[in-house]
Amino acid sequence: MTRSVVLLSGGMDSATVLAIAHAEGHDCYALSFNYGQRHYSELDAASIIAKQLGAIEHKLINIDLGQLGGSALTDTSIDVPDAGSSGIPITYVPARNTVFLSLGLAWAEVLDADSIYVGVNSVDYSGYPDCRPEYIAAFQAMANLATKRTVEGQQLEVRTPLIDMSKAEIVTEGVRLGVDFSLTVSCYRADGNGAACGHCDACELRREGFRAAGVDDPTLYHD
Amino acid sequence: MTRSVVLLSGGMDSATVLAIAHAEGHDCYALSFNYGQRHYSELDAASIIAKQLGAIEHKLINIDLGQLGGSALTDTSIDVPDAGSSGIPITYVPARNTVFLSLGLAWAEVLDADSIYVGVNSVDYSGYPDCRPEYIAAFQAMANLATKRTVEGQQLEVRTPLIDMSKAEIVTEGVRLGVDFSLTVSCYRADGNGAACGHCDACELRREGFRAAGVDDPTLYHD
Repeated sequence: MTRSVVLLSGGMDSATVLAIAHAEGHDCYALSFNYGQRHYSELDAASIIAKQLGAIEHKLINIDLGQLGGSALTDTSIDVPDAGSSGIPITYVPARNTVFLSLGLAWAEVLDADSIYVGVNSVDYSGYPDCRPEYIAAFQAMANLATKRTVEGQQLEVRTPLIDMSKAEIVTEGVRLGVDFSLTVSCYRADGNGAACGHCDACELRREGFRAAGVDDPTLYHD
Repeated sequence: MTRSVVLLSGGMDSATVLAIAHAEGHDCYALSFNYGQRHYSELDAASIIAKQLGAIEHKLINIDLGQLGGSALTDTSIDVPDAGSSGIPITYVPARNTVFLSLGLAWAEVLDADSIYVGVNSVDYSGYPDCRPEYIAAFQAMANLATKRTVEGQQLEVRTPLIDMSKAEIVTEGVRLGVDFSLTVSCYRADGNGAACGHCDACELRREGFRAAGVDDPTLYHD
């Protein structure tokens, strides 16, 4: 068994990634971040999902990205818009995946893990620069020059099993691997119980994913 | 004036880098990290140095790398050795520069800054993989694919003015630019007042740097 660090937000994509990493035979170490996100209830979801999907350990790191500003997800004075705007959305958090992958890299070195799994997806989230294959490849190249472990000859792979999947394909794969999507929280405006607004970008993508996959949407909506 | 983020530990190298960035005409935004380091008194030093060397703003981010383990700098159950061991030292903190540069990248995007200055040095610290030029080049390549700002056409440069300097050259350059080295803390075993042990790797390199530069060592030693 080789070890993998799995970035786990508590949303449907990262839950599916954890199930995939487990199914591919890795000992999984789930890593979540309390980064000042307004939908912090996703972290309760992450904790339950990590246990249910067989993670060996689940670690939560506090890192206040809200201190740096620049995003509706971490600055409550900026409203999360309803779905439908174009361009890179205001919910984009500056350098978020780079910060998260860097902390994943640190833990991977300590664990002697061969890979980091991350649920980026370039189809549905094409507006986010740090979800694209060329970004992931550049991060992996950097990571292999960055640490004692990699410089001494061990490779680190950044695995992105969802990168070319549609949301419907993610739903189908998650169902096949036993992910309980009712536990996952995607909504940017989720309340303290994880109930979703139904109107933001994340909600729209999620709902459409279930519809296209022909799977009943188990999401709890708060209105 | 263009803006730069300057990573500022409170040690002599990063203080010199801040002075260089300022002298090169940038508006400097200093960024420090409370990462669970045992020599936390360097952060008090960083705060004073940022003011004295003209930073527009100084931000301190809490990020508990001690949670991940793997270093004598963040795990008080592992002793900091005296100077003289070979190979990558036990004071190496897994992926530290990658984590710090990633957070610098996040702030640079919010500030619309063109560069990040970091005081890595491949001569004295050749044991640290994340102080080498090839690592810095790879980080910069990744950074330019990572953020909304860079993807929209603005470049980000990672500047390492000390990378080929000896410790003596750093001392000379710092003195020339008005750095008060008595304020800086380098020692891995520094006490709460910033007084140094005189025996660890960091102390040895620092002392030798002053000696070779022909500058009186202003360091306060605690024994």
